[in-house]
Amino acid sequence: MRRTVRTRVRRFDETGLIDARADSLAGEEPLEVRLDGEQFTVTMRTPGDDVELIAGFLLSEGIVTEWKQILRVDFSTGIDPDGTRNLNVARVVLEPGTWDRDRYQARQIYTSSACGICGTASIEAVQRTSTYPIVLDAMSEDGPVASPAITSRVLLSLPDAMREEQKLFGSTGGVHAAGLFRMARDAGGIADSAELVAVREDVGRHNAVDKVIGWALQEGMLPLSDTILQVSGRASFELVQKAAMAGIPVLSAVSAPSGLAVELGREQGITVVGFNRGTRFNAYSHHERIA
Amino acid sequence: MRRTVRTRVRRFDETGLIDARADSLAGEEPLEVRLDGEQFTVTMRTPGDDVELIAGFLLSEGIVTEWKQILRVDFSTGIDPDGTRNLNVARVVLEPGTWDRDRYQARQIYTSSACGICGTASIEAVQRTSTYPIVLDAMSEDGPVASPAITSRVLLSLPDAMREEQKLFGSTGGVHAAGLFRMARDAGGIADSAELVAVREDVGRHNAVDKVIGWALQEGMLPLSDTILQVSGRASFELVQKAAMAGIPVLSAVSAPSGLAVELGREQGITVVGFNRGTRFNAYSHHERIA
Repeated sequence: MRRTVRTRVRRFDETGLIDARADSLAGEEPLEVRLDGEQFTVTMRTPGDDVELIAGFLLSEGIVTEWKQILRVDFSTGIDPDGTRNLNVARVVLEPGTWDRDRYQARQIYTSSACGICGTASIEAVQRTSTYPIVLDAMSEDGPVASPAITSRVLLSLPDAMREEQKLFGSTGGVHAAGLFRMARDAGGIADSAELVAVREDVGRHNAVDKVIGWALQEGMLPLSDTILQVSGRASFELVQKAAMAGIPVLSAVSAPSGLAVELGREQGITVVGFNRGTRFNAYSHHERIA
Repeated sequence: MRRTVRTRVRRFDETGLIDARADSLAGEEPLEVRLDGEQFTVTMRTPGDDVELIAGFLLSEGIVTEWKQILRVDFSTGIDPDGTRNLNVARVVLEPGTWDRDRYQARQIYTSSACGICGTASIEAVQRTSTYPIVLDAMSEDGPVASPAITSRVLLSLPDAMREEQKLFGSTGGVHAAGLFRMARDAGGIADSAELVAVREDVGRHNAVDKVIGWALQEGMLPLSDTILQVSGRASFELVQKAAMAGIPVLSAVSAPSGLAVELGREQGITVVGFNRGTRFNAYSHHERIA
């Protein structure tokens, strides 16, 4: 159970084999989560920060809202064929009354059955579930809007600041990252700098986000109303959903968002930023937050 | 239900707002699949090629092996809040006897319970399930190996050839792609060119692969023993699994593979190529197939 694995790799160019050497790849292993005695999910993830991953996932699913609701996480000791122990099964015990399995499943089914099944139902499910709604401060003719809160210069600085801490990416060249930044505000209430407080990496983009959010849950930082979430790739619906569940008002991605990700950002009061590369970025929702 | 959606986007640089304009984003909507009357899976996908997506997914899961086993796919007409119909619920009817739900679920549980849960169990599950094993031709001191089959020049040409056909990427800049290439062999049996026969795009990398494999299933092309699968991003375990289930001997990725993806490639006789960019690439498994 390792974050990286060593492997032998052959390099080729158009004339054929150049050389053979040892290289590092990102680790990928299944993690099974059993919740209050029953199988809940299996995810392929890069080993490491597994408690944070589980905590962040349970928060994203609307099952827990506070760290203290997670009473125990036991990693069981399976034996790999080579005789080493792995810790790929996690048994999670929640505080009694934290969640209602039947209601959770009913919610999943409701999401599927409303209007056939559509993006709008997915968005409504997030709205019904979120414990940490993002506060919008002013009214415009389009409805409630956010107050100016952050400069474009700060947003442009995030990808490079995160890249410096992406240790797995540095050694493997192929892994997603999520970074949580805390805004530092000037006298006028505008964030003119942001401090990187956590970076997590994983072969799965959603896992990297769960790991940083789970870390913040453990630190008692929720709701994350004074933070920005930076991600290395695209912004899918699922990532905006995770930001919404944690109360994060700004999500910045290096690549493009999907249409549904932007729609959810608009509904949830989240500023969705995409193509944040070098000297420019695009804002797709709640751009009024950018001073 | 659209492949792309139009949205308003604001561009910023470090001095602030530059302009506002209309832009296209990749569509993302849930698709619910009901199999023989029961809910089977819900996936977030870019609408379009949904029958191919479902067929490829069922093949990847080891549920079908031939197109004729899929008797019906009915898309039901839900109503979105704006009054338009969506087709996001698919009811699939398989030929009687195609699969055994209890055995399928038992297999899922077995994968989880063997050696705790570990990468090796995941690999064994693919080995037990695959109908189209990849043929290895010769013996070496390391065990069976593949015969030379393709030049490095052909492999280097694939990403650009696929990029020209990535229409969604061209308009949105943020969507994954998978392309299936058919090898054309010279008199000596070596592929010195490859023809692109299908490209599919999706916000989910695994969906793009399911769509091309589902297309090939429909065309009666399986096993895909004379093809190469090119993908736009990383090569995860899941993508090598899909290649293995369809009998594809070569998987080429623009970015890095994971450790488990390489391990599965070695076990299954698949040549896993990564960092295929410009003038060089890396081969991580069964490099002897590259002449």
